[in-house]
Amino acid sequence: MYAELIVEILNYVGIVAFAVSGALKAGEKDMDLLGFIVLGFSTALAGGIIRDVLLGRVPPANLMYIPYPATAIIASLVTFVLYPQVRRYRDVVLYPDALGLGAFAAIGADITATYCSTNRIESCWLLVITLSSITAAGGGVVRDILAGEVPVVLRREVYASAAAIGGVLYLALYPLGREIAMLTTIIAVTAIRVVTLLKGWELPRVRL
Amino acid sequence: MYAELIVEILNYVGIVAFAVSGALKAGEKDMDLLGFIVLGFSTALAGGIIRDVLLGRVPPANLMYIPYPATAIIASLVTFVLYPQVRRYRDVVLYPDALGLGAFAAIGADITATYCSTNRIESCWLLVITLSSITAAGGGVVRDILAGEVPVVLRREVYASAAAIGGVLYLALYPLGREIAMLTTIIAVTAIRVVTLLKGWELPRVRL
Amino acid sequence: MYAELIVEILNYVGIVAFAVSGALKAGEKDMDLLGFIVLGFSTALAGGIIRDVLLGRVPPANLMYIPYPATAIIASLVTFVLYPQVRRYRDVVLYPDALGLGAFAAIGADITATYCSTNRIESCWLLVITLSSITAAGGGVVRDILAGEVPVVLRREVYASAAAIGGVLYLALYPLGREIAMLTTIIAVTAIRVVTLLKGWELPRVRL
Repeated sequence: MYAELIVEILNYVGIVAFAVSGALKAGEKDMDLLGFIVLGFSTALAGGIIRDVLLGRVPPANLMYIPYPATAIIASLVTFVLYPQVRRYRDVVLYPDALGLGAFAAIGADITATYCSTNRIESCWLLVITLSSITAAGGGVVRDILAGEVPVVLRREVYASAAAIGGVLYLALYPLGREIAMLTTIIAVTAIRVVTLLKGWELPRVRL
Repeated sequence: MYAELIVEILNYVGIVAFAVSGALKAGEKDMDLLGFIVLGFSTALAGGIIRDVLLGRVPPANLMYIPYPATAIIASLVTFVLYPQVRRYRDVVLYPDALGLGAFAAIGADITATYCSTNRIESCWLLVITLSSITAAGGGVVRDILAGEVPVVLRREVYASAAAIGGVLYLALYPLGREIAMLTTIIAVTAIRVVTLLKGWELPRVRL
Repeated sequence: MYAELIVEILNYVGIVAFAVSGALKAGEKDMDLLGFIVLGFSTALAGGIIRDVLLGRVPPANLMYIPYPATAIIASLVTFVLYPQVRRYRDVVLYPDALGLGAFAAIGADITATYCSTNRIESCWLLVITLSSITAAGGGVVRDILAGEVPVVLRREVYASAAAIGGVLYLALYPLGREIAMLTTIIAVTAIRVVTLLKGWELPRVRL
């Protein structure tokens, strides 16, 4: 019960941090008010929407359960109104963003594993890892495409791969119970993201 | 009954105008015949397709009811064949485009509200506003992404926001009957779009 | 029975060739290891995933039947590790790619026609042609969008249009049996692609 509450709180932390990152990108691209809202909304919620569509859970929860989109829209509006201030602290947002990445990865893994268990689907592991990553990193990809940029997660940072590792970890710990699996996933993904960020570590690239 | 006929006629006006705008973009980007068809098709029909996928109405009506895609493809082909002429009158197309925006917003709101009513879904208002906007403006976003551009609706024009206001209006007038709600939505969205276009009004942007 | 085996073998040929083309694009854009995997995966499997979502076949087969994504991921990893070598032979990959295009078009047409027949949907021809093209060419469009480029199939090459012709052919031959329709589609699409490639033929463009 405590575990559920923690996950839900971190989910809101993630929605706010992701929406702020989307709205900041809208500002960077000289978009108008609607651009701020759409990019904030998409960054925070598109990953979960794509996951739900791929699982046939429609209409997606992120469009139906009002507190989620409301939080994303309010965070986008605040970023619009206080743009210079929020922008100055954009590096600070990276830490709640890392927590959100962990929470989204854990929630994505948990929803998918529960779906497979309910529908008696076997060999579900690839789906769990893929949808865990999409839930966590899909919104950032949509943000970058809407901003006309090559998605940063494909180029530089340890971000989607941290989420994928989270999916693997969730699966490994699933036999110990969903709550342990989720909490460990959140801690591990957040830690990987923060450490690689501080150390400037990147995934390997090809030598030319 | 008359209302239904008017909405359906304006729906076709919208399909033609949207397809022409997509095909013109294809020409601007030096695409080939297939590019004209795909951009015309996507601009006219992708918004409704995304709406249907999010509601679980598959296969989407825009791929099943032949007159819709046939109209979009014919309009794209005509734009290809008569490209210099159509291009010269592209500012004229903005007026049927505004009517189409209104019709698509009203149809998107109506389909979503009917879906919620049929499936006894409560607190459906955000879904109506979101899917009304996506039905009307989603095709233009897909067009711009396929053309390698930042979607214009996020940057400059009062377009998707006019559709969103249409969604709100539809909801407010829904108790008076679906037909009144739809017709008023069409008139209001078209009027907002035309007035802001003529006046050059834009949504606010942040001051840097 | 032999026909099924041939189609399945060519399907794997297509997955490998498409994944290699995606991974090569990732290398061209200086992406990291994750970028190679995501672009390889998307190029090989996104077309089929979009088709399945539009038909309501969720979760999509390309995420559930492990050998498909496993093949795409391994091909992407090999391209990453042997990047200079694979890159040198990228023109050679165009031939298995053409076989894959034919196989994907035939499989997309067959799945859609079977879907319509099972669900007693009439006037299914446009859906067959559209989903045949999306199965075959959708992955390449996703690849190019993720790489920040205007999709090449909309601009220069006879690619998606070869797949669309394959959809038409499948429909024409369907009365003779699914196997004959599929094999002929594969041969025709591959031949059109290879001949237009060798001759440098392109679709018409508008004169300005």
